[in-house]
Amino acid sequence: MVKSTSAPTADRPPRPPIGGGAHRIGSSAIRDLLALAAQPEVISLAGGLPDAASFPVAAVADATAELLATDPASALQYGPTEGIEELRSLVAAHAGATRTATEAIITTGSQQALDLVARTLLDPGDVAVVTDPAYVGALQALRASAARLVPIASDEHGLRVDLLADALASGLRPRLVHVVSSFDNPTGATLSGDRRVALAELAEEHGFWIVDDDPYGALRWHGVEPEPLRSLTDRTISLGSTSKVLCPGLRVGWVLAPAAVAPSIAVVKQATDLHTSTFAQHLALRLLADRATLDAHLDALRATYRQRATALIAALDRHAPGALVHRPPSGGMFLWARLGDDVRSEATADQLLAEALDTGVAFVPGSAFAAGPARRHERHLRLSFASLPDADLDLAARRLATVLSRRPRHRARHRTA
Amino acid sequence: MVKSTSAPTADRPPRPPIGGGAHRIGSSAIRDLLALAAQPEVISLAGGLPDAASFPVAAVADATAELLATDPASALQYGPTEGIEELRSLVAAHAGATRTATEAIITTGSQQALDLVARTLLDPGDVAVVTDPAYVGALQALRASAARLVPIASDEHGLRVDLLADALASGLRPRLVHVVSSFDNPTGATLSGDRRVALAELAEEHGFWIVDDDPYGALRWHGVEPEPLRSLTDRTISLGSTSKVLCPGLRVGWVLAPAAVAPSIAVVKQATDLHTSTFAQHLALRLLADRATLDAHLDALRATYRQRATALIAALDRHAPGALVHRPPSGGMFLWARLGDDVRSEATADQLLAEALDTGVAFVPGSAFAAGPARRHERHLRLSFASLPDADLDLAARRLATVLSRRPRHRARHRTA
Repeated sequence: MVKSTSAPTADRPPRPPIGGGAHRIGSSAIRDLLALAAQPEVISLAGGLPDAASFPVAAVADATAELLATDPASALQYGPTEGIEELRSLVAAHAGATRTATEAIITTGSQQALDLVARTLLDPGDVAVVTDPAYVGALQALRASAARLVPIASDEHGLRVDLLADALASGLRPRLVHVVSSFDNPTGATLSGDRRVALAELAEEHGFWIVDDDPYGALRWHGVEPEPLRSLTDRTISLGSTSKVLCPGLRVGWVLAPAAVAPSIAVVKQATDLHTSTFAQHLALRLLADRATLDAHLDALRATYRQRATALIAALDRHAPGALVHRPPSGGMFLWARLGDDVRSEATADQLLAEALDTGVAFVPGSAFAAGPARRHERHLRLSFASLPDADLDLAARRLATVLSRRPRHRARHRTA
Repeated sequence: MVKSTSAPTADRPPRPPIGGGAHRIGSSAIRDLLALAAQPEVISLAGGLPDAASFPVAAVADATAELLATDPASALQYGPTEGIEELRSLVAAHAGATRTATEAIITTGSQQALDLVARTLLDPGDVAVVTDPAYVGALQALRASAARLVPIASDEHGLRVDLLADALASGLRPRLVHVVSSFDNPTGATLSGDRRVALAELAEEHGFWIVDDDPYGALRWHGVEPEPLRSLTDRTISLGSTSKVLCPGLRVGWVLAPAAVAPSIAVVKQATDLHTSTFAQHLALRLLADRATLDAHLDALRATYRQRATALIAALDRHAPGALVHRPPSGGMFLWARLGDDVRSEATADQLLAEALDTGVAFVPGSAFAAGPARRHERHLRLSFASLPDADLDLAARRLATVLSRRPRHRARHRTA
């Protein structure tokens, strides 16, 4: 689970061939892992992929046919850097009656939104607060800007805002604080209403930006979403995406930023990729604007994910009762589980992964999401239930149980850190 | 034609709200101009847009229908950061029998290829050589990396490689040299065969990278393309795009880089947008792989552009004989024209643009492409003929002639620089 950096090369000039941001980013640990997990005999709980069987294929086909029949020139031509006007309006309207299209910038997925926000707001050495554990893509985007990342622990209610307050009282001056506010990747946690209020107050008091990364919020099947951060403070920059609610292949996301910031994000975007695919934007617009079809699609998607979350937890209870400590998720795609204290107590999740792959099941060890010392999450596993049918979830749990129930191979506890 | 930077804002914290790259990039002068040129009564020779009537709409519709019928899960799911394998193979094969898919990274248009190459290769303060005049998007991407841009003049045969050699002899140590090797934007010039050989030798001797930006090469209707730079030296990084040969709306481009560099570009891309739209990549693959249909499409496109270039030149000769000095292009989308010495000798092209817009015609003044002092190109105009029918080209030339034939308003020559 060590990050691979670019391979050394036989380069002629005195400088190494790769400068710029490459050495700061490193490759994703998850990405390296998925190469192993992709073997056909392995059931992968490691992926972060939405369920392909849920993709609205017929709606995409209909939207494409209609788009090419009625407005092919717009669909296939260059477009404005900020995105097509109708989609910007739709994104703004969805965020609230007072928001305007000028605040919305359409991006090439919400990963680009992260990258643009980082490039727009951060100068080298600026402080960016991230949760620990954190979404790996956020760590990559923020590291690329040469910001100084400061991890603050999160728990089952999201970012420990009390610890952030302590750090601010001690003189920490972050430029931004990144959170995945609903159904966090990897923890599945939703930032509680109280903490949202407290975080918003801190943002106003200390003048930092809250980057509210929210690709999963629409996947809630239980409970009520707390007030969105953007309703609590204008110091919120919201990121959204069609990837988890429609399909990732369009690569259409967005950033909703106050009018003081959005134009600068557009300036950076223009240098970055001119604009996001107009074709994909027009399709996303049609799919998001057809509210009845979208709602039916989301209802079905939430039902599928709820069913699979329930099935995975039931299978774990059946095959490995008590071996993993977790909370049933209320939405999203992930189950964040800790190894019971007496379960393979000699081993880290990293070490168990090798055994698990041999047994035909994959997961992502918690260390992959570490924003601070990897040790903090070395006994955690991220299990994705989104794209597997019940039978596979059962078999995956059975294989995992085999690994978890083994007698320790070594009495001494090894740590990789 | 002054670059607009982000507007000042009412921000609470002591720091201005926008750090990062935004202040280094500025907005594109062309972009500001196009806002004016978009009025319906204005005939715009200012755009850089390909002809929308040429877009292969039926082929896109067929490819979409076939794709969604046969492989919807791949088309709409996340994909590899480097791009889908078949498209990478196709790009590599097109570049030569010895190239492999691992050297090709699919990008969100070639603008992103520029951005990724800049971020991968350049550290702040590194030297990047650009032609003067230069493609505005390249200037933006390179400036965002905080590189030091060194302009070297170009002429009707492209970059003055002799001047580059002088600068290298004087101690210039560029990290990369950017050229638009065929049918340059804005000059329309193609880097000559001799200069390509000389540039390749300099790259090997001094260890810089040649970034060969080539979106227009397939639009040649006269003469033969000189040997591609990548055939002359492994120190070439080639950028390509479907935008000018198929349609821009897909935002599918690529970078072809030696195996020592390509993986690092992929690492940067992962943090930037995870990957380019898989849907768009699958469509581009189908459109590019159907060689017979593509060739017929390109033949028709080249014929259209040749016809329009000829029509524009004929109209200028008809309505404003001798007023503009230019060379008939052998391909591409642009005519680069200099005001005759005795034509409105008191005025710069910037100044004439205001009059031209009043008269109902738009062009881009040369200063917009300046990589050095804007004064060098203050009497040049970039005229795009790609997207206008003959009648509009004739009317545009007539309106331009009205402006060019006016008596000077002021005897003194004003310079905006």
